[in-house]
Parts: sequence; C-alpha cells; structure tokens
Amino acid sequence: MVSAHGKVRVAVNGFGTIGKRVADAVAKQPDMVLVGVTKTRPSFEARRAKEKGYPLYLAGNGSREEFESAGLPVAGTLAELLAKSDIVVDAAPDKVGRENAKLYKDLGLRAIFQGGEKAEVAEASFNALGNFDACRGKRTLRVVSCNTTGIARAASVLVPRYGVDHWEVTLVRRASDPAETKKGPINGILPTFQLPSHHGPDVRTIFPDLPIATTALVVPTTLMHVHVNHVRLRRPPTDAKEVLSAFRATPRFHLFAPWEHADGTPQVMEYARDRGIGFNDMMENVLWEEGLRLEGSDAYFFQAIHQESIVVPENIDAIRAACELSDGPTSIRTTDRALGLSA
Amino acid sequence: MVSAHGKVRVAVNGFGTIGKRVADAVAKQPDMVLVGVTKTRPSFEARRAKEKGYPLYLAGNGSREEFESAGLPVAGTLAELLAKSDIVVDAAPDKVGRENAKLYKDLGLRAIFQGGEKAEVAEASFNALGNFDACRGKRTLRVVSCNTTGIARAASVLVPRYGVDHWEVTLVRRASDPAETKKGPINGILPTFQLPSHHGPDVRTIFPDLPIATTALVVPTTLMHVHVNHVRLRRPPTDAKEVLSAFRATPRFHLFAPWEHADGTPQVMEYARDRGIGFNDMMENVLWEEGLRLEGSDAYFFQAIHQESIVVPENIDAIRAACELSDGPTSIRTTDRALGLSA
Amino acid sequence: MVSAHGKVRVAVNGFGTIGKRVADAVAKQPDMVLVGVTKTRPSFEARRAKEKGYPLYLAGNGSREEFESAGLPVAGTLAELLAKSDIVVDAAPDKVGRENAKLYKDLGLRAIFQGGEKAEVAEASFNALGNFDACRGKRTLRVVSCNTTGIARAASVLVPRYGVDHWEVTLVRRASDPAETKKGPINGILPTFQLPSHHGPDVRTIFPDLPIATTALVVPTTLMHVHVNHVRLRRPPTDAKEVLSAFRATPRFHLFAPWEHADGTPQVMEYARDRGIGFNDMMENVLWEEGLRLEGSDAYFFQAIHQESIVVPENIDAIRAACELSDGPTSIRTTDRALGLSA
Amino acid sequence: MVSAHGKVRVAVNGFGTIGKRVADAVAKQPDMVLVGVTKTRPSFEARRAKEKGYPLYLAGNGSREEFESAGLPVAGTLAELLAKSDIVVDAAPDKVGRENAKLYKDLGLRAIFQGGEKAEVAEASFNALGNFDACRGKRTLRVVSCNTTGIARAASVLVPRYGVDHWEVTLVRRASDPAETKKGPINGILPTFQLPSHHGPDVRTIFPDLPIATTALVVPTTLMHVHVNHVRLRRPPTDAKEVLSAFRATPRFHLFAPWEHADGTPQVMEYARDRGIGFNDMMENVLWEEGLRLEGSDAYFFQAIHQESIVVPENIDAIRAACELSDGPTSIRTTDRALGLSA
Repeated sequence: MVSAHGKVRVAVNGFGTIGKRVADAVAKQPDMVLVGVTKTRPSFEARRAKEKGYPLYLAGNGSREEFESAGLPVAGTLAELLAKSDIVVDAAPDKVGRENAKLYKDLGLRAIFQGGEKAEVAEASFNALGNFDACRGKRTLRVVSCNTTGIARAASVLVPRYGVDHWEVTLVRRASDPAETKKGPINGILPTFQLPSHHGPDVRTIFPDLPIATTALVVPTTLMHVHVNHVRLRRPPTDAKEVLSAFRATPRFHLFAPWEHADGTPQVMEYARDRGIGFNDMMENVLWEEGLRLEGSDAYFFQAIHQESIVVPENIDAIRAACELSDGPTSIRTTDRALGLSA
Repeated sequence: MVSAHGKVRVAVNGFGTIGKRVADAVAKQPDMVLVGVTKTRPSFEARRAKEKGYPLYLAGNGSREEFESAGLPVAGTLAELLAKSDIVVDAAPDKVGRENAKLYKDLGLRAIFQGGEKAEVAEASFNALGNFDACRGKRTLRVVSCNTTGIARAASVLVPRYGVDHWEVTLVRRASDPAETKKGPINGILPTFQLPSHHGPDVRTIFPDLPIATTALVVPTTLMHVHVNHVRLRRPPTDAKEVLSAFRATPRFHLFAPWEHADGTPQVMEYARDRGIGFNDMMENVLWEEGLRLEGSDAYFFQAIHQESIVVPENIDAIRAACELSDGPTSIRTTDRALGLSA
Repeated sequence: MVSAHGKVRVAVNGFGTIGKRVADAVAKQPDMVLVGVTKTRPSFEARRAKEKGYPLYLAGNGSREEFESAGLPVAGTLAELLAKSDIVVDAAPDKVGRENAKLYKDLGLRAIFQGGEKAEVAEASFNALGNFDACRGKRTLRVVSCNTTGIARAASVLVPRYGVDHWEVTLVRRASDPAETKKGPINGILPTFQLPSHHGPDVRTIFPDLPIATTALVVPTTLMHVHVNHVRLRRPPTDAKEVLSAFRATPRFHLFAPWEHADGTPQVMEYARDRGIGFNDMMENVLWEEGLRLEGSDAYFFQAIHQESIVVPENIDAIRAACELSDGPTSIRTTDRALGLSA
Repeated sequence: MVSAHGKVRVAVNGFGTIGKRVADAVAKQPDMVLVGVTKTRPSFEARRAKEKGYPLYLAGNGSREEFESAGLPVAGTLAELLAKSDIVVDAAPDKVGRENAKLYKDLGLRAIFQGGEKAEVAEASFNALGNFDACRGKRTLRVVSCNTTGIARAASVLVPRYGVDHWEVTLVRRASDPAETKKGPINGILPTFQLPSHHGPDVRTIFPDLPIATTALVVPTTLMHVHVNHVRLRRPPTDAKEVLSAFRATPRFHLFAPWEHADGTPQVMEYARDRGIGFNDMMENVLWEEGLRLEGSDAYFFQAIHQESIVVPENIDAIRAACELSDGPTSIRTTDRALGLSA
C-alpha cells in the first residue's frame, strides 16, 4: 500500500508525549510523509509543531479561534486530516483511542493504537522484534505499552535462543512523566495491588505462551522505569558474557560498560542528553553489563525503560506492518537508521 | 544476669536514629535500667536526651566544653558509662561498632551490635522470632539490619508452617532517612549491581539453609523500604486467607485491610503518626491483605519495612537473650507490651 | 456559654488532617468535651477515632453499612451530632465548609471554619495572638490558613513593638501533605502567577492595614512551608538579639540555636518526632537564630510553618473566643499547656 | 589575537556539566577551533567526546591505561593541549580552577574561569550583556555563576532603562544537577543561613553599585533555579507590557505566553527538549508574561535559570572579550546564531 508519490501518508492524532515523538519519527522516514498532527488547544508543544512545519489540525472540541489568537492558524479538522491520510497513528490520551477507533473504522482507515488502550481496540498487538510477521497486513494494530514493549524485546532475545521456563519481573515504575506536574507521590512507594500485574498478560498478546509473572510498584521519579528480571532459561547459556552479547547484537538494546559510570537512571538520561536523539530519548532497552548475572540456567538482570520514547520506533514499524511496506528486519533497520539509533 | 536492684543496667552508645529509639525502649522495659547514652556533639537530639532525663556521656572525640556551652552538661565519658553498665547497645555509625567491639571486649562487657557491622563483630546474629534460643547466653550479638530483620520475621512465619523451596525478594529501598539531607538521589532509580544482593546471605545468618535470592535498588524516598516477595512453599497453604491469618497471628506483623485505604508507604507512615508509638514508628512488618496472592504453592506478597524502627524491639530482645533474662516468646511479649505494640 | 456540666460541647465535622488534630486537642482541654467526630467512609483514620473512643458520626453521603462491615459502628448522623453540641469545628474539605455553614446557621449553632473557606463564611477571621479580643463573642469565626496564621503570629510580635513600614514574604510552599500521594510535582518548581499572592490580603483580615506583599511558589516536598521575610520596621530594634528575644518570649514560636544543627525542614520535623507532640507536630512558628538578620530597620528572617498542625491551637482558642470562655492570653496559656507546648 | 588559520584555538579543561557544553559551543563558532578537551577518567561522557571527534587529553591524575582499556585513546596530557591553544576555558570542579590558574599564568595563556571560583581568580568577572566592554582585552576572566549571570542579565535590561533603587531576590535553588545522584535533600527545604546570600555581592562584580539583597534556599529538584524578584525602579515604566517588551527585545531572554501553558520549571524543560538545543538546554533567562507585575515603580517577577547551560554562551563571549575578537553586541549575535538561540 503505497501512495501515488511513493510514500505512505501518515496522520498523527494527538501531539503529546507520544504523538510529538512519533510525528518527528515519521517525518524522518524515507517511505513516509507526515500529513499533519492534531491538538485540542494551543500550547508550547503546538507552537513547536508549527515551527517544525507540521500542519496542525483541530482535534476534540478544540477551538479554531483559540489557536488563531495564539498565532497558530490551523489547517483544518481531524476529519479533513484523516481524509488526506493512508493511515493514522492514534496518540490520543488513554481510552480516547477507543472512541477514535470507531471513526477510523467508518472511514476505512488503517490505524495504529497505543498500549493505553485495551487489546481489543485492534486486530493484533504489536512489537517489532516480537511479532512483526504475524501483524503484517492487519489494518489495525496496537503497539503495546512501554513496559510491555521492554519485556517483549527482551523475550525476543531470550525465547528463541534459550527457551524460557519461568520469568519474573518486578516493575519499579516512574510515577509521572517529567512535565506531568499534577501527579504524585512526592515521597513514598505505592505497591500495585494487582498480583500479578496486568503486564504479564499484556506480554502474552505478543508471546502467547510465555510463562511470565509480573509485579509492579510506583516510585517518585519521572525519568525511567526499571525492571528487575529473573528468567529461568530452558537451555543454560555458556556464561553471562554470551547473554550480554546476545542483547548487544540485537537492535534496540543499549548496554553500558562498568567504566562508563552510568550508575542509574539519572546517568542513563544524562547519556541520552549527551547523545541528543529526539527529546533526549532512549528508545532502546537499557542494560548494564554489571547488572546481569547468570547462575546456571537462571539469569538475573536489570533493564531500564524510557517510558516516553521506547514505543516510538515500534509505532513506525507498526505502520510498515499494517501497510505491508517491508519485512520486519528491514523495517527495524530503516527505522533505526532514520532515527540515528546505533546499529 | 541481674543487677542488685533486679534490673539489667544498659548503656546505649550512640544517640542517633537507632540509639535514641533503643534508649526510649530500654527506659520502658520493666527489667532494664537505662544507665546513659553517648553523643559526640550537642544537637537537638542531645537536648532531647537531657529533657528526657537520660544521662549524657561523651563519645568519640566529643568536647565537654562544647556541650556545656550548649547548656548540656555531660555526666562523664564513655568509659565511665560502660563501667556502670551490665551491657551496652552499640548504636554508633556503621563500621565504628567494629572498633568499639575491642573496647567492650577488653572490659568484659556484654554487647549488642547493629546490622551495619559485619557478622563477625559478634558471636551470633540475632532475630527475636528467628533464633532467640540459639542466641541465649552469647555475650555478643548482632541484630541484623532492617531489611534482613524484615525478611527473617517473614521466614519465621513461613518456614515452620510450610517450608520454603525458593524465595525471591526485590528490595525497593528508601534512599535516605528523613533527616539525612545530604543523600540523594532526588530523581531517579539506582540499581544495586551486586547480584544477588548481600541481604540473602545476611538472612542465612539466622536461617542457615534458606534458599533465598535478593535483588535491590534504591529509590528517592525517605519513608520505608518495600519488599516484593515471591516464595515457593514446600507445602501449599489452603488459601491466601490462611497465610494472612498466620501473619496476623504473629507478633510484629501489622496488616492493613482494604477498607483502611493505606495505599502505600505514605499512608502507612500516616497511620504510624496517628498511632503515636515512638517517633511515629512502625516497628512491625507491614503487609496489605490485598497485597498477598497465593497461586498453588506460590505466595506473592509486598511488605513494607520502616528502616528507622523495625530493629528497636529486636535490640531489646537481644539484651534479654544475651543476659539470659527470659525465653524468646516471653521477651517478645514483654517488649511489645512495654512499647505499646498491639498483641 | 457553658453547658450544664461546665464544659463546652464540641463537635468536629471532618476527621482528616485538621479534624483529627483538632479532635485530639479538644479532648485534652479542661473546659471542653469532644462530643464526636464525623467521617464519610471507613479508613485507618476512622479506626483510630474509634480506638481513641471518639464517637463516630456519618457525614456527607457516608454509608452506615460500609462502616459496620468494617467493624466501625457509627453513633448517628451529623445532624444528631450537631444536636448534642454547643459549637462545631468545621474541618471538611475546602469549599464544603461553605455548604455546611448554612446548616449550622439553621441550627443556630456556633461554628469555627478553616482558612480554605473564603472570609465571608464567618463573621470574622481569627488568629489568637492577632485579634482574639475583636473576635470574642462572634458566633462564627474562620481560623485563617496555615501560611496566614504563620504571618499573623509574626506580625503580632513585630507590629506592636516596632511598627511595620513594609513587609515582603516569599512563600516557598510544600506541594502536598505527606499522605496526599496523588499530588505533584515530583521534580520541579511551580511559581504562583498571582502577583502578589492571596496571602497578603488574607493577613489583612487580621491586621487590616498591614503593608504586606506576598509571593508564592510550590516545591516538591511534603513537610513544611518556608517563608522568606523582609520587614522594614518603623522603629529600629537595638540588635538582632532583641528581635530574637521578642520572638522567643512569645507563645507559639520555637527557635533553634546553631548548635542544635536543625539545618532545614527535615531536621525540624525530626525534632518534632523526638518531641512527640500530636502527630509529630510543630504547632509553633519555627525560626532559626542564624536565620534572622537585622540591617538597621530591615529585618530578614526565615520561618518554617508546619501546614498540618499550626492552626490546631488556633482552632481551640477560636472556640473559646466564640463561646466567650476566657480572654486571649488565658486561652493561649490553657491551650498550650494542655497540648504540651513549651511556655 | 587570531591564529594563523584565522581562528582562535580553544582548549576546554574539564568535560563535565559545563565543559561538555562549552566544548560543543566552541565547536560551533565560526571564529574558534576546539583544540581538545580533558578528562580524568573514562566515562560515557568521555566516550561522547570521542564520538564527537573532540581530541581527548588527560587531566589531573588520570591514567592513560585506564582510558586505553576503555577504548578511548588519549591524544596527550593537559600540558600538551595547552601548548597548542591560544586560550583555555577552565571547567574543572569548583576550587580546582584556582590551582589551574597558576599553571595557565606560567604558560602565559589566556584563561576563562567559572563562577565557582572566587572573583580573585581572574582580572575581572564577566557577563556579556553586563560588562563586555570593561572586560575586553583582559587576559583572564571569570564568568559569574548561573544565578549571578541570571541576575546580571536582568540588571542589563532594567538598570539602563529605569534605574534601580532597590532590588530583592529570593533564590529558590535546585539541590543538584540531574545526574548528581549523591546529593540531597530528597524531601525538605534548606534555608541558606547566610543573610544576605553571596549572590548580591557577586552581582556587584558586574554592576558595582547595584543596591541588591539576595536570600537563598535549596529545594529538592534538579531542573532549574527560580528567582523571585522585587525591583523598585527609579523611573516608573508605563506599564507591565513595556517591561515585558524590554525583556523580550533583549538577547538571552525567553518569555512564555499564558496560552503556552508552561506552568513551571518542568514544562520549561519540556519546551527545551522540544526545541532540542544542546543537551535540552535553556540558555536564556526564562520569564513568564503572567509572572511579572508592575505596581507603580515596583516590578515583581519570577525568572527561571537553567543551572547547567545559562553560562555557556557567556563563556563563548568571554573568549571573544579576552581575545579582543569583536565588540559585545557582535559577539552575542554571533554566539547565539551559532547556538540556534532565537534572535
């Protein structure tokens, strides 16, 4: 499915944390065109959209006048944007995507949804390393959430190589994104009293039979989630080095060596600022060489997940899967090169 | 071992976070007398010692003049305090206790050390529910650290009842105590790259064969640690209710019901303030009824550990064990009644 | 106005942060009786009310069944509580007090409101040191908010002694109370774009002509507010010592000496825990000797304000003012002695 | 002073928070060449230096072997770097610059120091808008600290236009930089008991007679400082709009309009990430239109200061002043264009 000009025309509905990143990423792809983005009210983010030359459309109950008085004339309504597009990435707030889904369906439009929606919103749940092929040609896909994406990527490394007998993850979750100033807690830890948490079943939308149990709690930080993993592998690796090499050889993994002194998520984010991709983003799963230990068949490892950006390359690949533009490895390679992620 | 007046004479060396609590606890026991406490420099804590009528002695390189000019005359030196005491609770900063150990030994004084010291500092490591009997009559004991105490207590419930095939704990640790203003991080998560962490081996100083593996990370909060536990029990409990009842029936466990709305550690500490024991202390392991789930032989549960106070009753019981004042259950009962902990 | 038994019968409507403290304080006064408290749903706080023997009444749309199934039988409804009371302290959430005011008026009941309500809710705004006499005999009073109370107390020291030509306060506000886990920000500073802030006009409900301008911002902490004051006095004090002495000689001020090492609000709260009044409360304005500087007629000083408890003694005094039980100084002395605040 | 190739050869000694930013900025200037940077140990920051093609030299007691085993061969020692340079920007940790100063002097090398050093370290203290001309041709300059730079810039707008009778600033300081994970406090406010704080006298190294008094406190955030200003102007502006226009027309000021919804420092930093200059930097003083109020001659305003980057353009201009490369306005224009700061 390719437009006349040879590129897929993509609309991004919603220009918040995920939407603004996906829009940038779409604009950088060789086989996609960003038709426009939507916003419900003017803001500094809307202003950046304009400065970047992204046509701005009105979503929700947004007011054209409000935008104009802010010096941000809009190019039209969501309906007008969708009419010009081959596919839409829905980056609306959680649960709004579900409402939007009806609209897209009525228009016969391909659509990519985010992990804040239930799996039922789309024909399949998607992760590029995990199940690209199974998703190819589905008209609607749901990119699983940041935490689920992180686990699915790690599963893509471990399951085919070693098999997994049992996997336990404690998800130590950041309480809010950096600019979500209304959310707490400021000082304290909040256990999630859903035991096991919903993340395990969500991973199984990608790896249906994975024997995984997850537990979650929320801590007062804004930077990244950290997963504490214990995986009992079916076939024991030779040593920890071998497992580290497997991660290192896989796209969308970033490993820190001990001499780099990346002691925790603040240093990882500092590295991300040094590197300068996206909005100081870390789209890869982050592992530490010191943070992996193998005891026979048991692998223990930490991984850090940047909640704001990890799903961005997945959205791009999901577009290619839904539009049947390429196979998985090619899509991942194209996406990552365009985004500047190291090979 | 009982003094002329029928009470054990206890010195508390160090009057910081642990020392000030142990001093209060000693003062409340029917079979103990607080001979005095030590401090190296005047502070609001030293002032409270005086206001509470605790004789203040000079420790370390403290200056008598400095105390006097603050209106806090001292009663003498550490050596003078020790000379009047039957036993000393060492609550000096980590690693200082090791130095003090030589002094106590030279004086032939019984001594209780804290978990910041290595196990070798004392004849045995101690936990009241875990190994009171084995510690009876040892002249020197080490009360294990807050996290280890929390795990040892839980083991005291689970091991005899069900047996344990495997236990995994992720320790989500508070970064600093409330008044330790120099320590961070302010925003971020720091994994502990010791895999497994030292807590597992430390628990085995109490339960030598426990198959336990622990992992730790540090988060920006001051209130409590939270443990995420997964225990594979040897003999499956009937149901979760039975396990909850076992915890509830054991001293030094506090369970919150769902209707109490104690969503996380901030609410637990708010409860502690409402209750008013000690310095808004929570000397019990805190569990949530909603925060325990049983799947066959696998028990998953959260427990919160108040790092400042959980070892306080243990220090008291350790005094009784070292001085052979009573058996374990009697000591626990006496301690808890004196401290106001619910039966 | 005194009941048959010689004591004023007080109802506390609302048993949250302020209500639970006021209830405890009422229960300790020699001339008051706590008739009961209200709660809308069961919680650990409601449980404490029961454990303390405070009759529990249903407020709002609370369900009697819900309380009973939690083992907390209620004594009746708010209406029944009010019928047995001479005066009610309204400690309902902000803006609910305004609705309650109509009910109290219909019942002809005296009432004390909190500073979250607008001044119009009551006949007068109240501060014990500031305007007790002017409030005597008013049937309805509003205890001004924590920040306004803190400033009004300081004004009570400075205005009569020196006169004030100009006063500027920057209020560095804590973002949430310790157990309010839903509120942020976690990392960041939020200026209050109301310039000057509402606190200045609110102080003038107590000191009508005070030339005061206030500015506020919110920071990610839960413990205390800190005020940065610059006061231009009409008549220059002799020296800083004289001003410090004036504060020290006034009830409801607590000063820290340099040797106490109370470096900031975490240490102040640690002192409060050591002292053990209320819920580790600091009902006094906190000043630091090092934190006051005089340059001619210009006094600069920091003061810390414990948002949870500073208005508690003020509510007690307001009851006495409304019920004409005593003069101001006597009331303050009685309140503070009952609460254990140092003379 | 221009090298053979027509560009000034700049060494950056130290590659931490300031050094890495200054190095990038130097590399972007049309009239400068970055000769190299120094580092004492390998780290992810050192790795970035190499990836950016910056020659890496050994500083302090750094070990060549340690760098080599990390795959980061060094180009030589600090002495070798300095021998190839016309000027050095000292970005060593506080107080180390003072030691380095002797070395630079012995080599007869021009040098730029940071504000963590005392004023005596250099012939003059520098701020581009404030005193470029007075600094021209001095062989050593000290760029004042982030907070002082922020105030000096604001003074550069207000002093010439209106005159200043009195200026008060409360500095609400961030406690640590984002990746400084060892520093606290985590929860609490720490007043600075130096009254007034050192910032006022530091501003007077640029504006010698400015009647300014500053007060400071530290709060648990990593993002930005916020200044609360009250300036009594000698000549009253027409209205707030006029003052806002004056700020807006000046380089290195960024103003947010109300419709941009930049409520506090988290949103300002989010804007910085959206904009993508440097390491998500905000090198300008940040003001909010809503956050400025004029009452006659009294201007009240908030400004936010990004501690990590605000001095970066100043260092570049200081190089030009020391090397007499251009006049102040030309330098500022050149610097800002190269850095992508809006005109």
